[in-house]
Amino acid sequence: MNLCKCGKQNKDMANAIRFLSADAIEKSNSGHPGMPLGMADVATVLFSQFIKLNPSEPHWFDRDRFVLSAGHGSMLMYSLLYLLGYKDISINDIKNFRQLGAKTAGHPEYGHLAGIDMTTGPLGQGITSAVGMALAERMIAAKYGDDVCNHYTYVIAGDGCLMEGISEEAISVAGHLKLNKLIVFWDNNNITIDGKVDAANSTDQIKRFEACGWNTIEVDGHCQKAIAKAIVKAQKSKKPTLIACKTTIGFGAPSKCGTSKCHGSPLGAEELENMRRALNWTSAPFEIPDDIIQAWRDAGQRNIGAFKDWQARAKSKGKEFNDVINGKLPKGWDKELNQLKETAIAEKTKVATRKASQMCLEAIVPHIPQIIGGSADLAASNLTLTKASKTITAKDYNGNNIMYGIREHAMAAIMNGMALHGGIIPFGGTFFVFSDYMRPAQRLSALMGIRVIYVLTHDSIGVGEDGPTHQPIEHLASYRCMPNILTFRPCDIVETAEAWQIAIETDNKPSILALTRQNLPLLRSSAKENLTSKGGYVLSEAQNKRQATIIATGSEVSMAMEAKAKLAEEGIDVAVVSMPCCELFDAQPIYYQEKVLGTAPRIAVEAASKFGWEKYVGLDGDIIGMDGFGASGPAGELFKYFGITVEEVVDSVKDLIR
Amino acid sequence: MNLCKCGKQNKDMANAIRFLSADAIEKSNSGHPGMPLGMADVATVLFSQFIKLNPSEPHWFDRDRFVLSAGHGSMLMYSLLYLLGYKDISINDIKNFRQLGAKTAGHPEYGHLAGIDMTTGPLGQGITSAVGMALAERMIAAKYGDDVCNHYTYVIAGDGCLMEGISEEAISVAGHLKLNKLIVFWDNNNITIDGKVDAANSTDQIKRFEACGWNTIEVDGHCQKAIAKAIVKAQKSKKPTLIACKTTIGFGAPSKCGTSKCHGSPLGAEELENMRRALNWTSAPFEIPDDIIQAWRDAGQRNIGAFKDWQARAKSKGKEFNDVINGKLPKGWDKELNQLKETAIAEKTKVATRKASQMCLEAIVPHIPQIIGGSADLAASNLTLTKASKTITAKDYNGNNIMYGIREHAMAAIMNGMALHGGIIPFGGTFFVFSDYMRPAQRLSALMGIRVIYVLTHDSIGVGEDGPTHQPIEHLASYRCMPNILTFRPCDIVETAEAWQIAIETDNKPSILALTRQNLPLLRSSAKENLTSKGGYVLSEAQNKRQATIIATGSEVSMAMEAKAKLAEEGIDVAVVSMPCCELFDAQPIYYQEKVLGTAPRIAVEAASKFGWEKYVGLDGDIIGMDGFGASGPAGELFKYFGITVEEVVDSVKDLIR
Repeated sequence: MNLCKCGKQNKDMANAIRFLSADAIEKSNSGHPGMPLGMADVATVLFSQFIKLNPSEPHWFDRDRFVLSAGHGSMLMYSLLYLLGYKDISINDIKNFRQLGAKTAGHPEYGHLAGIDMTTGPLGQGITSAVGMALAERMIAAKYGDDVCNHYTYVIAGDGCLMEGISEEAISVAGHLKLNKLIVFWDNNNITIDGKVDAANSTDQIKRFEACGWNTIEVDGHCQKAIAKAIVKAQKSKKPTLIACKTTIGFGAPSKCGTSKCHGSPLGAEELENMRRALNWTSAPFEIPDDIIQAWRDAGQRNIGAFKDWQARAKSKGKEFNDVINGKLPKGWDKELNQLKETAIAEKTKVATRKASQMCLEAIVPHIPQIIGGSADLAASNLTLTKASKTITAKDYNGNNIMYGIREHAMAAIMNGMALHGGIIPFGGTFFVFSDYMRPAQRLSALMGIRVIYVLTHDSIGVGEDGPTHQPIEHLASYRCMPNILTFRPCDIVETAEAWQIAIETDNKPSILALTRQNLPLLRSSAKENLTSKGGYVLSEAQNKRQATIIATGSEVSMAMEAKAKLAEEGIDVAVVSMPCCELFDAQPIYYQEKVLGTAPRIAVEAASKFGWEKYVGLDGDIIGMDGFGASGPAGELFKYFGITVEEVVDSVKDLIR
Repeated sequence: MNLCKCGKQNKDMANAIRFLSADAIEKSNSGHPGMPLGMADVATVLFSQFIKLNPSEPHWFDRDRFVLSAGHGSMLMYSLLYLLGYKDISINDIKNFRQLGAKTAGHPEYGHLAGIDMTTGPLGQGITSAVGMALAERMIAAKYGDDVCNHYTYVIAGDGCLMEGISEEAISVAGHLKLNKLIVFWDNNNITIDGKVDAANSTDQIKRFEACGWNTIEVDGHCQKAIAKAIVKAQKSKKPTLIACKTTIGFGAPSKCGTSKCHGSPLGAEELENMRRALNWTSAPFEIPDDIIQAWRDAGQRNIGAFKDWQARAKSKGKEFNDVINGKLPKGWDKELNQLKETAIAEKTKVATRKASQMCLEAIVPHIPQIIGGSADLAASNLTLTKASKTITAKDYNGNNIMYGIREHAMAAIMNGMALHGGIIPFGGTFFVFSDYMRPAQRLSALMGIRVIYVLTHDSIGVGEDGPTHQPIEHLASYRCMPNILTFRPCDIVETAEAWQIAIETDNKPSILALTRQNLPLLRSSAKENLTSKGGYVLSEAQNKRQATIIATGSEVSMAMEAKAKLAEEGIDVAVVSMPCCELFDAQPIYYQEKVLGTAPRIAVEAASKFGWEKYVGLDGDIIGMDGFGASGPAGELFKYFGITVEEVVDSVKDLIR
């Protein structure tokens, strides 16, 4: 173990983290002691001398952000919040680590405990969302001034985070945009679950970060003076900084430190006892010497003055800034959007829903200052740019559009970071089929319950010639089964506008907009009520008595309407239900659902996997959809080839009612 | 445009690619001319002077592999195959580019046209699977000798591939394992769909690859002599090589070259006409001058001698090698596995299915030489190692286990590459929840129809304390809706063994094994028939007349069995159906499905998203499952908290039959 002379109190402040962490993990008999023990010195320096925070105001907009990208080291976070004096966490919470209902969950959970800036655990997500936070900080500062938005984003990342591919997307974006207030501590302990890092990796991380435009500093992760010096240097950098901290995993645990044995299991009573001896720590479990806890509490109060000064400056900054940071939408923000719907109905606007989405954005973006758009190198296809869009660069952060490059995963995680930071409502586009690349980050959007809007165009075999690699099939179902996310597939420009309205007003869930490449006719005759907010509704009732109900989404709703007309010619009376959002429909009262779906036989039509539609059509209904992957060819031919046509719908109805 | 003096014939061989590509794209009015035009010189050098292939034997095991990672440039591939004389492609196929049913699909599709080594299009997948191919080559060579396995893997990758995070995972694995026979050509044209690369990226790619242990060479991508020199140098390298080819996108198109205008749209008649003039190309569309086609056909024949020599050597290599490369399983490979089932039944073995899977692997690995395992840094949790496992290193490729590091996405794509290469049946492990990271590659496993086995442990809230970031909820449903993949969730060791049997014998689909962290009792009393192969079956019939049918999977099957026993005490007679693989059940004859599911009310029990279960229980049945994300806490408490218990099942049955 290291012989650095950093002063007993500083060392014991770090040891307080070590013992709170190790004792809590021991008591719960579950958890990851290696990282909290190894990074305790770094965390002590950062949190006691540098980080700008106010334990009484955990949501202070201008606080420094901190992301524990290596989320398994959650006890490091909980120890810090307790020691700093956050009211939301007590010693009993520490003792209840990883128990059902405890604030001290297995991994840090956003919204679960004040002071946690992000849910982490899935590796690589933290460092990437931190890029979003750092970017949000610069964009808001560029707009409203450094006097009200001027903070750092700090990250602790492990080898796992750096091996995940998403980290490369993250660091290349951060380097490209010169996010110099982003400072990443790499817990360079050369240990992963399966053993030594060099068994699976020999990347020169310093060189790699430098290749991506980062400033790098190497430091002994157990020398607090050296760590402090490095942070001071990093804060002055014109580039984002990686501080590579050479650490010993499980520092202090005499026989297990430096090995994977202390990564993911409690140390055990004997080792813990020996650690007490080794670090000369005489306090009982969960007890911290008075002088040490006082030193920590004092550290927690360092920025009270700065907080008050900021409050005064923020107050005088005017309504827009304060609304933005409080997540308030401008009054009447959707007035132009509502007009768009009326005009569309008057003019019977026939457009692809991706184009409809762009028309909506033209009506939204100028009215909501916190809207920030972007695309993963498909802006011209996703139609995410508007006349009011201005792309940010490293030289000018004052804008509302981000060129994410061909980095879908980072786009999603960066959007998470921007939404978490606050003051921003992010939307970002790619092809629907490539949403697969974003899934780990999207799951976190849903789990954290944050407002991130995914604009996913080219939503079916309607993609045409690009073929099966570019045609989503299972994607709609794969989001419908994910908790806490809204999956919209609008059928025309009116439903598209309605979906945008809901997505923007829903501040506790992410939304997906699945949009067509191809043109779709206008189907709605009134936009008085936002019918999409009910998830599904009767678009066209039967004339007399329903003989069947055709349920459809997106591009297949017009197909259903045509089928209805053909069936009427043959004297068959059906209703058409448009179902732009199953999740919202499922949330309606049962009587509404039953009224909409009716008692007549039901048919679902959707150019996607049939999986899940039995929920609405039952075992006696019919589903017209895709049974396998798509194919390359003109879109019209594909719909015929795969049997998703008006004729098939007509035949299906006839078969069903026979 | 470039003034390099590389000889008229060489230039015209490249121009043949350019005009075939541009004319086909023009005719189909769809496609991406920029890349084929820009990389035609590189492709000409590679395919006419270096690549080892035999157009008459496109599946020659010892051919060099070629992956067009930038798959949108598909016409480059089709032009090459036609020019080299592959019988599977004619000039009519070129003329039918992107038409329904044509072999010349929008993106190259494996199995669709002989000579395509991999389906590409989703960026970053190609370069990563190529790492798998290069690794497969070295591993098979280490085992059977360089005399029968000694070939290069070549890749053409664009900026998109290099920006995708998966590429970092790929290059760090390749560098770490010193895969020196992997040669990547980077089409360094500084253009992406949205404009110039430097608008979204400023990574120093050369430095980045060097940080990952690669050899790098920079070259003028339009100077054929320089390209040839670079390849010679790369072939001698002890590291994988990146050849950075400075190219002009759309080379030859006078007004559009060097811009994103020629990336993804036909050039247009006028531009194409001007290109003919600029490149002095007088042939009509789809016509190639005799001397040029002859030069290409001659190039195609360069390795006929080498092929014949190899054939002779391979023949004399013995049965095992020839079985391996022909994908034949050893006779009686599952004898020990069958014995394991018998023993388990005799001993009533109670183990977690992840442990059961390891026991199966102990019985499988020693008997199948082509089985190659691995894990993304969770070997001790996924239990993917066996006594017969030997981990490969850069110094010794003769093994059967790969430490993938914390790179789930690369693991999946590398497994795709190994399966595509042939001679290997790959399996790889991670936590089920992190399958999200692998999804784009898994979709390609399914789309290509290749045998890749995903060992996904910790399959539900049974994960316990790690909490919602680590507890899969939507994952089972999200694979069940994906075409052409088998999703297994076995309930005990016997079903686990059966699932392994099917996964190994199914050579045209990937399989997922979702396995528990926690112990499960033995439920099967006979292993005479592989019942998992039917997908679902009556595990325990009602004693007299079914009053209800409980359908369950994995850890919930024993719960269903307990509920059945409790219900019997109250005089209620139910059957329990185990459903380890919905996809296989759906493939059974209707009469079988109806017999199994019965006509009594049905209840499904699965500790996962309820989405999709209406398919079996209908609108009148009940589903016991998860409505949202999980939580952190001991597993037993979580099952109670979320109402997935024997009591709930009992109550549900009583409610239903009332």
